[in-house]
Amino acid sequence: MRVIAIDLMGNDLGVKPMVMAAFAFVKKFQDYRLILVGNMEQVEQVTTETHERIDFIDIREEIRTEKTARAGRDGGNSMATAINLVRNGEAEGVLSTGNSGALLSMATLNLKRIIGVKRPAFMPLMPTENEGKKFLLLDAGANLETTSDMLVQWALLGSIFAQVVLKVQNPRIGILNVGTEDEKGLEATKEAHQELKKNNEINYLGFFEARDLLKGNVDVAVVDGYAGNFILKTMEGTALSLLKMIKTSIKTKLRYKIGALLSKGAFKSVRQNLDYRHVGAA
Amino acid sequence: MRVIAIDLMGNDLGVKPMVMAAFAFVKKFQDYRLILVGNMEQVEQVTTETHERIDFIDIREEIRTEKTARAGRDGGNSMATAINLVRNGEAEGVLSTGNSGALLSMATLNLKRIIGVKRPAFMPLMPTENEGKKFLLLDAGANLETTSDMLVQWALLGSIFAQVVLKVQNPRIGILNVGTEDEKGLEATKEAHQELKKNNEINYLGFFEARDLLKGNVDVAVVDGYAGNFILKTMEGTALSLLKMIKTSIKTKLRYKIGALLSKGAFKSVRQNLDYRHVGAA
Repeated sequence: MRVIAIDLMGNDLGVKPMVMAAFAFVKKFQDYRLILVGNMEQVEQVTTETHERIDFIDIREEIRTEKTARAGRDGGNSMATAINLVRNGEAEGVLSTGNSGALLSMATLNLKRIIGVKRPAFMPLMPTENEGKKFLLLDAGANLETTSDMLVQWALLGSIFAQVVLKVQNPRIGILNVGTEDEKGLEATKEAHQELKKNNEINYLGFFEARDLLKGNVDVAVVDGYAGNFILKTMEGTALSLLKMIKTSIKTKLRYKIGALLSKGAFKSVRQNLDYRHVGAA
Repeated sequence: MRVIAIDLMGNDLGVKPMVMAAFAFVKKFQDYRLILVGNMEQVEQVTTETHERIDFIDIREEIRTEKTARAGRDGGNSMATAINLVRNGEAEGVLSTGNSGALLSMATLNLKRIIGVKRPAFMPLMPTENEGKKFLLLDAGANLETTSDMLVQWALLGSIFAQVVLKVQNPRIGILNVGTEDEKGLEATKEAHQELKKNNEINYLGFFEARDLLKGNVDVAVVDGYAGNFILKTMEGTALSLLKMIKTSIKTKLRYKIGALLSKGAFKSVRQNLDYRHVGAA
């Protein structure tokens, strides 16, 4: 039996999505037990259902900002409580949709890092032009200052994750850079590039540019957290703005409107494929 | 009579677009004279037309990479020749669609910088959700390492350019950052933010995030060249991939195809609004 601790608080949509997901999950996966940590009053408004493999811990305080993460070590809020379940060996992993900066600092402080990994990275699963095909982007913004060591470690981490969790054989790894020539980019990026070229453990393809990001040419895209954060948010913003522009443009003529009604389903599937809320992150 | 030097070489589409544009330009603007620098053999294949306010200088060598920029100072290629026309006072400005890195280095070396401006920046004009409304993005990648001084100077440069060239009254200036809180971001970014908050010469709105990039909330978006380059290319890549995804999705059903045919014009206008090839850069 595997045990996962789940922080119910801090989600923009309240506790409901996480509670519903938890019940769906235990029904689908028989060998998992879940410990849900959060405001029980709110949970009871969502469901009165119980399950033999779901336990609850009633914590009404929610962590709000990164700044309170250090204070949170004492366990007064739901996120700290969930993390401490892993620390004490009562759970093997922790899931949260709360403040990501706070999650990062508290997990690093309380659970420590894997030996050989200098800094954790945010690693969302990103969509590509080919529906259903995804790639890992790391670091998407956990670190502002990145060294070549960190980039090399993330390349290895991403490669292992892609193999074990996403079941990709021999995952293709690339470093996102401002150009594809060896001499382009920051010093740390160039050093990591040289280091990875010599590494036989992973399938390193070299530098690639952000304009090819969604083509699905790599399974793992490695980048410093500063650029990674801009890339993630630019993608999100561009996609949303573009869909809005199309919508506005369609409204200008009746013929466009009729056409759009007929092809609506096509847009829905694209929108779902792109929506980062439909994918998890590590 | 104002004189502009034009480098005809190094364009992916050959000399034709520049030559055609030059003839259209002199007909529209009576008080300009143009000096076109490039391979005359290629020009003659495009047109045998002449114009009293267009002169030609036959230079067949084209600059290919940034590396040759220094060598180009001697003026063996079309870009260096065009830049030297400005240096010698024969022209007031220079236009080129050739290698941007080479143009940047050669212009900086030969024409020097405006007093008070530490480093030049690439400044494309970017589309927004509101058709026809644009904003300036700088630096889009001329500099990898950026100091707070540079960011402050670019904010002022962008503000003046928006007023004088784009005729925007009291242009709204923002700094693109990984978050909107004062304490977020790189040191240089935070310093520039504090500096600009105190500056009464410009209308500084503060930090904003890349996910709001295309909303048109600012007229000038200031960012370091490293992030700026990623932002520009991510925008381009996301827009192209998204349009491709829509196309693929539409092909899955006949009903979608018919709808898409009816609303085709709506897409065309969005595509044109987004296409960076329809706008210039400084």
